[in-house]
Amino acid sequence: MSHTVEILSVGTELLLGSIANTDAQVISQGLSELGLNVYWHTVVGDNLQRAKEAVAIAKRRADIIITTGGLGPTCDDLTKNILAEAFGKKLVFDEPSAQRIQAYFQRIGRAMTDNNLQQAMLPEGCTILDNDWGTAPGCAFQAENVHVIMLPGPPSECRPMFRYRAMPYLQGLSEGVIASHTIKLFGIGESSMEAQLRDRMNAMSNPTLAPYAKEGECELRVTAKARTEEEAQGLLLPTVEQIKELFGSKVYGVDVTSLEEVVLMGLKEKGLTLGAAESCTGGLIAKRLTDIPGASSNFKGGIVSYTNEVKANVLQVPEQLLTQFGAVSAQVAQAMAEGARRVLDCDVALSSTGVAGPDRDDRDNEVGTMFVAIATREGTYVRTLHLGARPMRERLRIQTASHAFDLARRYLSGLPYED
Amino acid sequence: MSHTVEILSVGTELLLGSIANTDAQVISQGLSELGLNVYWHTVVGDNLQRAKEAVAIAKRRADIIITTGGLGPTCDDLTKNILAEAFGKKLVFDEPSAQRIQAYFQRIGRAMTDNNLQQAMLPEGCTILDNDWGTAPGCAFQAENVHVIMLPGPPSECRPMFRYRAMPYLQGLSEGVIASHTIKLFGIGESSMEAQLRDRMNAMSNPTLAPYAKEGECELRVTAKARTEEEAQGLLLPTVEQIKELFGSKVYGVDVTSLEEVVLMGLKEKGLTLGAAESCTGGLIAKRLTDIPGASSNFKGGIVSYTNEVKANVLQVPEQLLTQFGAVSAQVAQAMAEGARRVLDCDVALSSTGVAGPDRDDRDNEVGTMFVAIATREGTYVRTLHLGARPMRERLRIQTASHAFDLARRYLSGLPYED
Repeated sequence: MSHTVEILSVGTELLLGSIANTDAQVISQGLSELGLNVYWHTVVGDNLQRAKEAVAIAKRRADIIITTGGLGPTCDDLTKNILAEAFGKKLVFDEPSAQRIQAYFQRIGRAMTDNNLQQAMLPEGCTILDNDWGTAPGCAFQAENVHVIMLPGPPSECRPMFRYRAMPYLQGLSEGVIASHTIKLFGIGESSMEAQLRDRMNAMSNPTLAPYAKEGECELRVTAKARTEEEAQGLLLPTVEQIKELFGSKVYGVDVTSLEEVVLMGLKEKGLTLGAAESCTGGLIAKRLTDIPGASSNFKGGIVSYTNEVKANVLQVPEQLLTQFGAVSAQVAQAMAEGARRVLDCDVALSSTGVAGPDRDDRDNEVGTMFVAIATREGTYVRTLHLGARPMRERLRIQTASHAFDLARRYLSGLPYED
Repeated sequence: MSHTVEILSVGTELLLGSIANTDAQVISQGLSELGLNVYWHTVVGDNLQRAKEAVAIAKRRADIIITTGGLGPTCDDLTKNILAEAFGKKLVFDEPSAQRIQAYFQRIGRAMTDNNLQQAMLPEGCTILDNDWGTAPGCAFQAENVHVIMLPGPPSECRPMFRYRAMPYLQGLSEGVIASHTIKLFGIGESSMEAQLRDRMNAMSNPTLAPYAKEGECELRVTAKARTEEEAQGLLLPTVEQIKELFGSKVYGVDVTSLEEVVLMGLKEKGLTLGAAESCTGGLIAKRLTDIPGASSNFKGGIVSYTNEVKANVLQVPEQLLTQFGAVSAQVAQAMAEGARRVLDCDVALSSTGVAGPDRDDRDNEVGTMFVAIATREGTYVRTLHLGARPMRERLRIQTASHAFDLARRYLSGLPYED
């Protein structure tokens, strides 16, 4: 039987436009990995009557209902109450959940107000989905041929709760095995990637090929459905190999999280250390590296030189270069990377300098003009970027940092810096 | 009469999670400016039957239906056909729209395929909403006491079409204005804030009070409805003042974006410069500051000292402190802030050191043990945090950076570092 899913989000903040419904997006991606069809997203506010009506509609048309939001003390556990009632279930007090909530407050050193214990009231006979990322537990139950899964609303809780709690629960519902690999590419546009793949994609049915684009990167998810994991992998691997061959050095990894992860893995393998000197990326290179646990074994540190003074005094960039070429120049990018390599005493150093906007710099460089450099024992290489003024400041910074990582992963893999 | 709005988005890419429904977010924000109540967001795919059913539901419960997507040749103008049918309207050929579509292709220098002229078929008697940002025109009509507005799906078309075409059309329908202020708090939990406000919130009807929590911060949105902007502000201001008084120095701003923005504004006002020395936050403090355009006028830079070596050599932290107390200690946090203040030659310096996890450090400090410090001309202050091991690494880092900003904004406002 093929399942149909409705994602029902409860939260006035969504209807006011305070946030986008990224919970529904992330859940939809995961469900598509599981081969489950999402047919509806619905959003209602923290309003009893309208939330009830929405649940009644969902119950009629979907056989899996996943709710987000409306758990927790500030909304009187609206969602839980309505879903329990709609399926004729009582809420019962769950002592272990209560203890978890109390322990949570102890851990963060805050006094717990009594209304928090409401959250330990859960539908009788449900599967409790422990929340390791906040206070409100989730839950799942089956009744009247419908599976109901309730997750907390804050994205920082909803995402891990979905991935580590709801997905394992749902895995049991899909017959057979769905396996997938994700191929990550950098340095190619989505439409160019798609154009090269279009015929192949149309001809394929198992495995399937799904392209995604984000923040200047592309990824291809290859998904196969089979009776066993082994059979699924047998379907996947030839396709993965073909794609790697097709896109060559633009492929930076398979089933890896990010460019920075690939860089750290490469450093570990080679026993090298890394440092960074950042101007326009303002700490983002360091931040992305240190997002990864254990980065400290190979990432020594960075210097955010947001002024010429810090570039000169801390990074030892010659004043003459700053005067002659300006801070946004290939010459200064090179001197920054070389300076960072000396000052931080590391094997490889990355640097960035450019105009992230919204305005041009004092030398009238266009927004989107960026230089990234890599300094190694073999020498220094500078890549010049003209990213244009269209992307927002945040995206320009992300893409610039990614280009710096691209230089590093190419160096560490023995690939040329440019194709 | 007060209007109720449903936003109905048609697009399989939303159900697959390829993109978030930012169209609905942007439209919701604009409608709330107009004082129109959005009660439902619905998403369905490019599927005739389910889109028809969704339109039937929307027609029963809303008196303004705004659709996004499902216009244009790739989906056979699904949305337009269904809405026209639902309200018993014929589609008629609109010559001026056809000419605009032809002109558009001429302008971008592409050959026009014939299916594009479908887009000039529009509901009889409708108001045509010219699309200056793409090919598919939007339209609006009223029938059976429902207003229907159809907009194209791509965000780059939907946003301007909503703002410059739909909003003027809707302006005539809304009585009065809705105005709101957002009060931002740091250092208080959502449930504790909500417990202190519960009686007040229940007693209020205009203005209303809505609490939100994210990443260790809280916010309260106060919203009033009135005939004029002035009247609405008159209703809002006393409530804003009461809340500011109730939560005292935990309120860090009204209608501000973030703690770091408040810090930068404070620095600008006082003509002071800032620097940062980061260990556990790994560049996040610098990154968050430089997310803000123009940060360079007061933020000089930062040093990410992810190893003891960089702490000693670049930040001038005495080796003896590192040996005696370890890198995760109040003593080292203090020396890092003071070192950054010297090395970066700034008025105020922030520092962070701690265990972001997932594992304890080599001195067996628990995950979530964090020290943030501020060094100023008046001296240095260190705040000790025990955030617990349960929040994810990323959240621990965000909260730690926020605590550093909290010290800075308290210093800049002349508030005590702790309540």
